[in-house]
Amino acid sequence: MTVELICVGTELLLGNIVNTNAAYLAEKCAQMGFSCYFQTVVGDNFERLTQVLDCAVKRSDIVILCGGLGPTEDDLTKEAAAKYCGKELKADDHSMERIAGYFAGRNIKPTENNWKQAMIPEGAFVFDNYNGTAPGVAMEFGNVRIILLPGPPNELIPMFEESVTPYLNKLTPGVIFSQTVKICGVSESKAETMVKDLIDGQSNPTIATYAKTGEVHIRVTAKADDKKAANKLIKPVVKELKARFGYDIYSTEEATTLEKSVVDLLLANELTLTCAESCTGGMLSARLTNVPGVSEVYKAGYVTYSNKAKKKLLGVKKSTLQKYGAVSKQTAEEMVKGMAFTSKSDVAVAVTGIAGPDGGTKEKPVGLVYIACNVKGNITVKEFRFNGNRTKVRESAVMSALMLLRSCVLEYYSKVTFGKK
Amino acid sequence: MTVELICVGTELLLGNIVNTNAAYLAEKCAQMGFSCYFQTVVGDNFERLTQVLDCAVKRSDIVILCGGLGPTEDDLTKEAAAKYCGKELKADDHSMERIAGYFAGRNIKPTENNWKQAMIPEGAFVFDNYNGTAPGVAMEFGNVRIILLPGPPNELIPMFEESVTPYLNKLTPGVIFSQTVKICGVSESKAETMVKDLIDGQSNPTIATYAKTGEVHIRVTAKADDKKAANKLIKPVVKELKARFGYDIYSTEEATTLEKSVVDLLLANELTLTCAESCTGGMLSARLTNVPGVSEVYKAGYVTYSNKAKKKLLGVKKSTLQKYGAVSKQTAEEMVKGMAFTSKSDVAVAVTGIAGPDGGTKEKPVGLVYIACNVKGNITVKEFRFNGNRTKVRESAVMSALMLLRSCVLEYYSKVTFGKK
Repeated sequence: MTVELICVGTELLLGNIVNTNAAYLAEKCAQMGFSCYFQTVVGDNFERLTQVLDCAVKRSDIVILCGGLGPTEDDLTKEAAAKYCGKELKADDHSMERIAGYFAGRNIKPTENNWKQAMIPEGAFVFDNYNGTAPGVAMEFGNVRIILLPGPPNELIPMFEESVTPYLNKLTPGVIFSQTVKICGVSESKAETMVKDLIDGQSNPTIATYAKTGEVHIRVTAKADDKKAANKLIKPVVKELKARFGYDIYSTEEATTLEKSVVDLLLANELTLTCAESCTGGMLSARLTNVPGVSEVYKAGYVTYSNKAKKKLLGVKKSTLQKYGAVSKQTAEEMVKGMAFTSKSDVAVAVTGIAGPDGGTKEKPVGLVYIACNVKGNITVKEFRFNGNRTKVRESAVMSALMLLRSCVLEYYSKVTFGKK
Repeated sequence: MTVELICVGTELLLGNIVNTNAAYLAEKCAQMGFSCYFQTVVGDNFERLTQVLDCAVKRSDIVILCGGLGPTEDDLTKEAAAKYCGKELKADDHSMERIAGYFAGRNIKPTENNWKQAMIPEGAFVFDNYNGTAPGVAMEFGNVRIILLPGPPNELIPMFEESVTPYLNKLTPGVIFSQTVKICGVSESKAETMVKDLIDGQSNPTIATYAKTGEVHIRVTAKADDKKAANKLIKPVVKELKARFGYDIYSTEEATTLEKSVVDLLLANELTLTCAESCTGGMLSARLTNVPGVSEVYKAGYVTYSNKAKKKLLGVKKSTLQKYGAVSKQTAEEMVKGMAFTSKSDVAVAVTGIAGPDGGTKEKPVGLVYIACNVKGNITVKEFRFNGNRTKVRESAVMSALMLLRSCVLEYYSKVTFGKK
């Protein structure tokens, strides 16, 4: 079955916001096994919206529109879709009650135009909105399903996960289920080569690689009568991927990020962590501390931007800075040595480099970064040369620091590793 | 004149990447005074691409396609567009030379399929690519201009700025020029109300408000015979906006971010800065240190996640932590006091709060954040209650810390302020 997306909103046409809804919906639909060939963006304009909808209905099995379900006169997605299908809008008691409840719970008096959101096309199916006032709607028009969803992502996403996914799953026989194998430290082209035979040799489950910043995700998707049968198809492929990629796989769970896997690894080994950052200026700490529950592991961080701070806070020697410079293997090493000593943490990681645009020389160009890791006295220092602008260099450095941290801890605790989990 | 965007790429249809190109191109076209009513995403498929192009050509004056200009067989945007216009593809000597030069400069031998990128539709105009091998192309088809651009943003954006903008500007009589007034600490609805009379009363220049995270941007756009005349129309409006918003305007320059304006303000007053962060975990430092040249200002930062770190690194009293807790006005105050003392910086800023999802209580719920600022001994502490998930609370806290930092410095140096600049 094919699905087509229509995102409605003048702010998208003006480039005021990036269309993250389209990416979200496209990824979810692909996971469910639907093919998406077209996505359109159109403004809150009755005639143009109808024109785009007409085009979509003629070439796709399912048309998902998002945006334009708000309470104002500008919002006319529901009106246009209902008129196109020849359906009247009627007040829906259930939705009226929900809207009344939404406002009562917030001690706000709804305005007259809020009730417009409870008007539903005759015979349509309603998706409740637990995070706003606009219900979602599904209509049948001939053999085509037209689905209307609210535009704000914090309303759209929960509604899609909770209500629309089961609705769509019913449209295809059997279930589609997928598992993602997350890999770091392997380039996309290398990962693709490593699994080419699997991709070519299989049709159910299918295997697809996705390049993310510094990572590769391999998604294994199976179609079967039920979840259990799908899992049975997926399991041997994931096992094979584990055999091929080994420790480079940091997780096989959808919700686990690289930083979460690092925090989990530290937690599992009861290790505390301290970070010192120069060129990344706090980005590494910021990423680690975005993991809920990190406070058990992460104790303190230093942003030692100046040489003075490197000396004072981390005990880097003046002579080291003079002889080798702030961006050097030696300085990175002293940063993790001093930090582990002063903070009494089990693991210390330090980043020092030249993010640019200024500060580079022929010997030490922009993009040169040293990352050091100290696991209970075992120190590893690595040199990196990253491409790109200041932001890109900093992002690459953070990614590499997380990977180095992970591999150093794994190496130290090679007995308590991924394979055993 | 109307412009329509067609972004080509299977990775967009699969939701693998977010369509930032569409947002970029839409914003640029709106700034140049073109109306954009439709955006489409389609895959690398000859038939569907032709179908979408046909639809666009029939309803728009300018059609911009991006993506699918790569060297592989999958890439067929140029082939489809040329065929649609009834033009032959011919080897373009100039583009051949540029591609040869590109590879020679990198000591790489081009593969046979790289030369495909030098094939240009007869009579088309070529936009050189200074960051890759795919040249851009502009073709005339009746009264419609069809423009083909490479998909990678690091190739698309410089090509658009340097070559496509002047090409498009020639299509409209006169010039369109705009200036952005950037405001912080004022909600979008309040800002809109404050300029409603200006928006309603003017047609040239036009005035439009854009909500960004924690900020509002007001763009003043004028159309005139030349840049000088456009500036003359813009100037009095910007002056009026300055009179209405005062210090809440942090910049009137397109490239200046809030963090850059803060760094510039500190630089102008020769002030050094130190940050201590608890719940934001390094995000504030990371944002400030993304400004090139920040090292003159920013000396050191502390991520004092644990109470121990707050005591040891910032000298927060044990009794304060016990009596008032880590998330309190008193702790925030001691954090900036201690930091200014130990780091000997002129300005210190501290953030402590509950980012969630755990750790909240009835008295101190998730989202409660205290931010303190110390400008040469003058301490301000503010309490905030933010909504949203962990990431949102942290982002809001960083934004508020930047604003508080700015206003405290402005207040202290009220003689050396924005107004004078």
